[in-house]
Amino acid sequence: MAIINDRELHEECGVFGAFGIPDAATLTYYGLHALQHRGQEGCGIVRVKNRVFKRIKGEGLVTEVFNEENLTTLNGDMAIGHVRYSSNDKGGIENVQPFLFMHNTGDFATAHNGSVVNAVDLKKRLEDNGSLFHSTSDSEIFAHLVKKESNDQDRLNAIIDALNQIEGAFAFLIMTASKIYACRDKHGLRPLSLGKFGDGYVVSSETCAFNVVGAEFIRDVEPGEVVVIDKNGLTSVDYTKDKHHNICSMEYIYFARPDSDLEGTNVHTFRKKTGKLLFREAPPIEADVVIGVPDSSLSAAIGYSEESGIPYEMGIIKNRYVGRTFIQPSQELREKGVRMKLSAVRSIVNGKRVILVDDSIVRGTTSRRTVRMLKQAGAKEVHLRIASPLITHPCFYGVDTSTYEELIGAKFKDKLEKIKESIGADSLAYLSPESLYEAANNNCELCLACFTGKYPTATYQSIHDVNKI
Amino acid sequence: MAIINDRELHEECGVFGAFGIPDAATLTYYGLHALQHRGQEGCGIVRVKNRVFKRIKGEGLVTEVFNEENLTTLNGDMAIGHVRYSSNDKGGIENVQPFLFMHNTGDFATAHNGSVVNAVDLKKRLEDNGSLFHSTSDSEIFAHLVKKESNDQDRLNAIIDALNQIEGAFAFLIMTASKIYACRDKHGLRPLSLGKFGDGYVVSSETCAFNVVGAEFIRDVEPGEVVVIDKNGLTSVDYTKDKHHNICSMEYIYFARPDSDLEGTNVHTFRKKTGKLLFREAPPIEADVVIGVPDSSLSAAIGYSEESGIPYEMGIIKNRYVGRTFIQPSQELREKGVRMKLSAVRSIVNGKRVILVDDSIVRGTTSRRTVRMLKQAGAKEVHLRIASPLITHPCFYGVDTSTYEELIGAKFKDKLEKIKESIGADSLAYLSPESLYEAANNNCELCLACFTGKYPTATYQSIHDVNKI
Amino acid sequence: MAIINDRELHEECGVFGAFGIPDAATLTYYGLHALQHRGQEGCGIVRVKNRVFKRIKGEGLVTEVFNEENLTTLNGDMAIGHVRYSSNDKGGIENVQPFLFMHNTGDFATAHNGSVVNAVDLKKRLEDNGSLFHSTSDSEIFAHLVKKESNDQDRLNAIIDALNQIEGAFAFLIMTASKIYACRDKHGLRPLSLGKFGDGYVVSSETCAFNVVGAEFIRDVEPGEVVVIDKNGLTSVDYTKDKHHNICSMEYIYFARPDSDLEGTNVHTFRKKTGKLLFREAPPIEADVVIGVPDSSLSAAIGYSEESGIPYEMGIIKNRYVGRTFIQPSQELREKGVRMKLSAVRSIVNGKRVILVDDSIVRGTTSRRTVRMLKQAGAKEVHLRIASPLITHPCFYGVDTSTYEELIGAKFKDKLEKIKESIGADSLAYLSPESLYEAANNNCELCLACFTGKYPTATYQSIHDVNKI
Amino acid sequence: MAIINDRELHEECGVFGAFGIPDAATLTYYGLHALQHRGQEGCGIVRVKNRVFKRIKGEGLVTEVFNEENLTTLNGDMAIGHVRYSSNDKGGIENVQPFLFMHNTGDFATAHNGSVVNAVDLKKRLEDNGSLFHSTSDSEIFAHLVKKESNDQDRLNAIIDALNQIEGAFAFLIMTASKIYACRDKHGLRPLSLGKFGDGYVVSSETCAFNVVGAEFIRDVEPGEVVVIDKNGLTSVDYTKDKHHNICSMEYIYFARPDSDLEGTNVHTFRKKTGKLLFREAPPIEADVVIGVPDSSLSAAIGYSEESGIPYEMGIIKNRYVGRTFIQPSQELREKGVRMKLSAVRSIVNGKRVILVDDSIVRGTTSRRTVRMLKQAGAKEVHLRIASPLITHPCFYGVDTSTYEELIGAKFKDKLEKIKESIGADSLAYLSPESLYEAANNNCELCLACFTGKYPTATYQSIHDVNKI
Repeated sequence: MAIINDRELHEECGVFGAFGIPDAATLTYYGLHALQHRGQEGCGIVRVKNRVFKRIKGEGLVTEVFNEENLTTLNGDMAIGHVRYSSNDKGGIENVQPFLFMHNTGDFATAHNGSVVNAVDLKKRLEDNGSLFHSTSDSEIFAHLVKKESNDQDRLNAIIDALNQIEGAFAFLIMTASKIYACRDKHGLRPLSLGKFGDGYVVSSETCAFNVVGAEFIRDVEPGEVVVIDKNGLTSVDYTKDKHHNICSMEYIYFARPDSDLEGTNVHTFRKKTGKLLFREAPPIEADVVIGVPDSSLSAAIGYSEESGIPYEMGIIKNRYVGRTFIQPSQELREKGVRMKLSAVRSIVNGKRVILVDDSIVRGTTSRRTVRMLKQAGAKEVHLRIASPLITHPCFYGVDTSTYEELIGAKFKDKLEKIKESIGADSLAYLSPESLYEAANNNCELCLACFTGKYPTATYQSIHDVNKI
Repeated sequence: MAIINDRELHEECGVFGAFGIPDAATLTYYGLHALQHRGQEGCGIVRVKNRVFKRIKGEGLVTEVFNEENLTTLNGDMAIGHVRYSSNDKGGIENVQPFLFMHNTGDFATAHNGSVVNAVDLKKRLEDNGSLFHSTSDSEIFAHLVKKESNDQDRLNAIIDALNQIEGAFAFLIMTASKIYACRDKHGLRPLSLGKFGDGYVVSSETCAFNVVGAEFIRDVEPGEVVVIDKNGLTSVDYTKDKHHNICSMEYIYFARPDSDLEGTNVHTFRKKTGKLLFREAPPIEADVVIGVPDSSLSAAIGYSEESGIPYEMGIIKNRYVGRTFIQPSQELREKGVRMKLSAVRSIVNGKRVILVDDSIVRGTTSRRTVRMLKQAGAKEVHLRIASPLITHPCFYGVDTSTYEELIGAKFKDKLEKIKESIGADSLAYLSPESLYEAANNNCELCLACFTGKYPTATYQSIHDVNKI
Repeated sequence: MAIINDRELHEECGVFGAFGIPDAATLTYYGLHALQHRGQEGCGIVRVKNRVFKRIKGEGLVTEVFNEENLTTLNGDMAIGHVRYSSNDKGGIENVQPFLFMHNTGDFATAHNGSVVNAVDLKKRLEDNGSLFHSTSDSEIFAHLVKKESNDQDRLNAIIDALNQIEGAFAFLIMTASKIYACRDKHGLRPLSLGKFGDGYVVSSETCAFNVVGAEFIRDVEPGEVVVIDKNGLTSVDYTKDKHHNICSMEYIYFARPDSDLEGTNVHTFRKKTGKLLFREAPPIEADVVIGVPDSSLSAAIGYSEESGIPYEMGIIKNRYVGRTFIQPSQELREKGVRMKLSAVRSIVNGKRVILVDDSIVRGTTSRRTVRMLKQAGAKEVHLRIASPLITHPCFYGVDTSTYEELIGAKFKDKLEKIKESIGADSLAYLSPESLYEAANNNCELCLACFTGKYPTATYQSIHDVNKI
Repeated sequence: MAIINDRELHEECGVFGAFGIPDAATLTYYGLHALQHRGQEGCGIVRVKNRVFKRIKGEGLVTEVFNEENLTTLNGDMAIGHVRYSSNDKGGIENVQPFLFMHNTGDFATAHNGSVVNAVDLKKRLEDNGSLFHSTSDSEIFAHLVKKESNDQDRLNAIIDALNQIEGAFAFLIMTASKIYACRDKHGLRPLSLGKFGDGYVVSSETCAFNVVGAEFIRDVEPGEVVVIDKNGLTSVDYTKDKHHNICSMEYIYFARPDSDLEGTNVHTFRKKTGKLLFREAPPIEADVVIGVPDSSLSAAIGYSEESGIPYEMGIIKNRYVGRTFIQPSQELREKGVRMKLSAVRSIVNGKRVILVDDSIVRGTTSRRTVRMLKQAGAKEVHLRIASPLITHPCFYGVDTSTYEELIGAKFKDKLEKIKESIGADSLAYLSPESLYEAANNNCELCLACFTGKYPTATYQSIHDVNKI
């Protein structure tokens, strides 16, 4: 029984919060459901009612962990929630968020999306000062940093102090008995947006959740900002002056839902534009059909088709009923052509010259399989067009790009020909970093570390170690 | 807790069989998974091994009912399987197929997709002759018609005899200890195709399952044909000379997976063509974007976009993680804009004149909701384009079009203006029946009964009754 | 993962019915729960409401298959239910009762406890006349025998006719839209009792269910009797004049709950008396403590203790939390002494001469294990006293005594010494058949076939075959 | 759906540990299963393998949380486990033990049975010094007290230091990468015993688990002792000189399994003796049968029967198949006599004068229900005999005796007549505290606080508060 994991890249988690809204937990349920693509391994919701915290969390999808019966017990007008991705080796219910902490100065809950690069150092220091950790999550570190203050004003100062000690990429929600604090890292690597719902407020990793719950988008939480949401509305505090708009480009390229807006640019629109730019940049090629790899590459494929005039077709289909667990085809069946998720449409690709648009290549395994599948279905030629640059460096901000050695772009650096051969495509082209900027309307700087090795944050030993390999 | 049911039209079931293939049940598992869109309420597989039948069936998706442990117990080189759609009122595990019958002349299993129009009469006659029914399924009738013969040749004659007594739409699989019989109704209303897998054979309601398991398409089972699959390969017998190619047009328009081929025409290609023809036929309209209702209308929308030159955008998103059960938003939350499955993308439709392409309108409820959702997201105009004709008559061949009175096309017959108003669209246009033929390459007649009232089969009392209403 | 099966003897099933009682299905739930010891593999309830039948059934315990949500859907004032034991090889949801049959003369449901000895012949004849079987259960045969009549009076005649064709041991409930028919085999092999609950009636395999639901015991259904329960109350019909009171002695010795009364004798009282008689009959022995094997032998052990004056102690404990599934200790752990269900109490048996009272010996495996366990816990001597005679013949009436060869009493017939040695006891004694009669107050004849080979029913080929071995 | 909770008194938890034993977690599974009566709400096991900790825990019974698949992943030769009872209001997976803590000086796990009376003060002080709590469990406090030391010798000192700060009743297991520390409170309120299994060691809340896994009892952990179990065997350290043998008398009377030995006295033997003493002490009464309330009062009832010569009968039966969840009978059905767990046996009690032996009375509700049930089944007289003294004071050591006001013995103090009337018994007698000592062979002092109000530990504000009420 395999746990579904159909993406080569993984990011950790999505967060959602609701304040001043009747049945805030129910709204959070719908919000998390809209963020489910950011993490399918576990989820949880904490609500506050009359200053009492109550949490339900579990492993599985939002629709699996929550049901009408248990959701009903989470009534109250404040809630935060979390969806979690976890690699197999560091799972377990204790890492499923939100975390809930008991303290004589006031209980609090936290939910966190991202990655703290100086976690090891911080943890050691905290333990030396009396902390004891239950989980391996970075989120718990943050809780220990902010725990000690005894009144609401002090709490904000403690949070600001804590945020200044953390280096990394994150969107952070902290809920006390009366407030939700929404924090975003100073590089703006992870997205976090504010919305209005009736008389209350919502905060979400992506704006798609606002579309789903019918909330009105207000604005993004700014890099380096803490937004305090309480009965007085929204209060903004900058926890640092060192602020940047380096949103992770993979959010645009791959992670985010196409109906989300990041830094003011719609993700589908971004992707469609990368498809158009890809056509313009890449060497011209004669072809019969343009095909995208579902689902994240469809927008780019449509853009390529519109720009090139080559018709867009559904040459690859994704099964909509792949549940969270399924029976993996055996090696023998895979070789005979049994496929669980993606299948090529013979009557569309047979005898055709195919432009295959994909969003990115990580290890190359998936691309190789996809190209082979198209050829087995009769495609005469398969020209692979990647709507992002070559990934050459690992990510330290929560994107699970496996190890450095596994990156096909690191192995075969500057050697497009070898990658093309390894994958079995008839031609291969990547998008330039410049075009990514253009697709994002040049209104943010974007983090391109995985393409360029230029990491926006201070670098730590662990990072150097990995880079040296 | 609602059971997911996001389609206004329902058809009953899909079938898959495998003969002469090691681990035939496992292949059937993947085949059924590819047919999951045809029925999500229940599923089952029966295998034969050394003449012993073993069945596992259950309520739920293929990935829910089967796991490695129970699938392993179904080893053997012959199997048939079934996915079932059931309306709420006639559910229950006893109606989940395949059925398995014990008989001193040889046990046998059956799986069936479709609807028998003379079921009531047949059942009465069979009961008078000693039959006793466990289920309300038409499939059991068929089993009683063929049960009595004692050797393989007689069995075939019994099946032929039985098929001639049945009036309706069906694809039928019968598995004895040594053979699979694949039968298709004489009107060809339901699809059924044959494929080759290694040294063995597969048979499936749709060819998409062949793409998924890596089988090679041989040909469709013909209307009025019984194909006997056994150790001698394929043997074809016509059970009647009265044969027609009236495949259900809704299979093209809505039910089938876009990667299936029906009567030689790919479904996505068909739909894309309807989109193109729809643009040509419908009154010209100025618009900014073309949007399709996911998933079944996306191909038509892309066709419309290609033909019109108006860009295709992802203005409506479907949540991929809607499980089989979920918590329905309360009326209050729905009014506030909370949506579970489809959401409009504000940044794409805001201020835009939208061409909304949908495959069909049944009761109109969904269309009304979709149009309202787009307007709430800021769409300036919504022009609804339906890639099929107006549905005016109920179906008696397994498509659940609700009752006659509920059909918005029956209520407001020939009154497009009223339907447009009821739905709240700024304009409305349907495709002509002629264009459906053209989209199907004019190589089959298509059953258009739901659009025209011309039923291809003999009509029975129950049909007349309904028509009169 | 093992399915619990802690008994060497198995009987198939228990039945319960309720008529004229609001929420009859809920009462049936509690009734079945009280009969759970008669079958743990599956259970089901069918109710009638306004002539409409509805059924829920499943594999597992009553508390696993039913919950408040699904039980609520079974409202109505008539219901029958069933708990099922099944050996591993003939399981499956299709054999779980009650069965529900659709027929134009009126639907009906059946629930059945027992075994039909002429099943093979009947099935063949029925199939020749048009019957088709879904299950391997004897219960379905009976349904086919009674199906054809079209009015209520005819139905009774059909039932009487059917009962006269069946040879075997059974308690049978048939529920039509307006009546429950309660039938008992003419030998009275299986128990079935009638009770009053408010203005309505209940019928149950054992009277313990009456204690549990607060019903008042009326009387047993008599051997060869059909009791019709309908709005006119109870109507009694004898379907044959050939009637006997040969209740299965194993019902007293082992199967029934101690709080049930069979043929007017309480089961605990019966067992206690066998303990007393066992002391009187068996050779006198010096001992320190009397211990019973939980749970079925505790009454006999207490009787032995009272009669002998040797104190009764809890020297063997049964874990109350053995669920339906558990992890079987590996062979290695078993050898090291790991036990899941029964454990000896060292501080009670250490250094003691133990009288170990058990109800019966089938294959001898369990007795051997129990004796060894006591010795490992320090028992100086273990004197095994069996509160029933030596089992020498297989049963054909629903008691699963394994095959003839496996019976230690068949293998070592008349060789008590060899059985004693094989089991490792220091002495061994059985009860005489006469004492069984005495314990039952001599008011019924008892079936002693497994002890004597004298079968009360006509014998069929299959029986002879087995006996010859 | 009710969660089963058929006891009026509750204690929190049981612990089991295994060191130096292949597949220590599997042995712990069987050990916990033997301790299941001490807690059914949740359970967990942590193992160490090559210094790596791995935990599985969950809500439910041992047989529900663990299966062969997940237990297999816990291989290794050290493990500790826990079964948990939790009142409904403070449940949740975060309180299910063992706890597992990450620390740079070495990870460790803890499992704990009992109650810390100075928890509030300790928690405040720890939080002021940097601790942050995830759960409401006392066990976490202990972990924070011991966390800081960096080598094994220091660890022992830290544990000793921590134990001296805790006031209360407890058995505590701490597992580091190489050792298990087994600690018992200085009053000896909770039991904890050591056993030998092959070349390794086991430690358990009750010795019944040794019987079950085939381990050899070595000795009890002494009050105020820490036993260090590591590759050098057992090392004993007294953490205090202030040591007492005040084992909780309720362990004997009610909690422990009858096959456990506490402080050298077998629990069944203790109970049987209380039954004998109860007969001698209580006013003589003419009666026909002695009946015990299953399961905890059966030993005392047998003792009473043996001493009085009045026959012991099974007049009340407990259903063995009450699962963890079941459908509670409605008020209406309860009034009609529907019972889920206990039922009276009419044929045994009808017309009889009954001695009903019960172990204790807390709120009186259960006794009242039981007496009424016997009278409804026809008992002429019911004489209630309680095999322990009148409970007049709440417990602060982990026994959930509800609030002070709910104690029928507190309300009606010294007013036996009123309790008798309230319960509806024909006579009522309690055992004297002196007889409890005698039953325990006078070899320990016993904690009788709930009978006498004399608490063995220092008393804290909270205790005074409750007493004053």
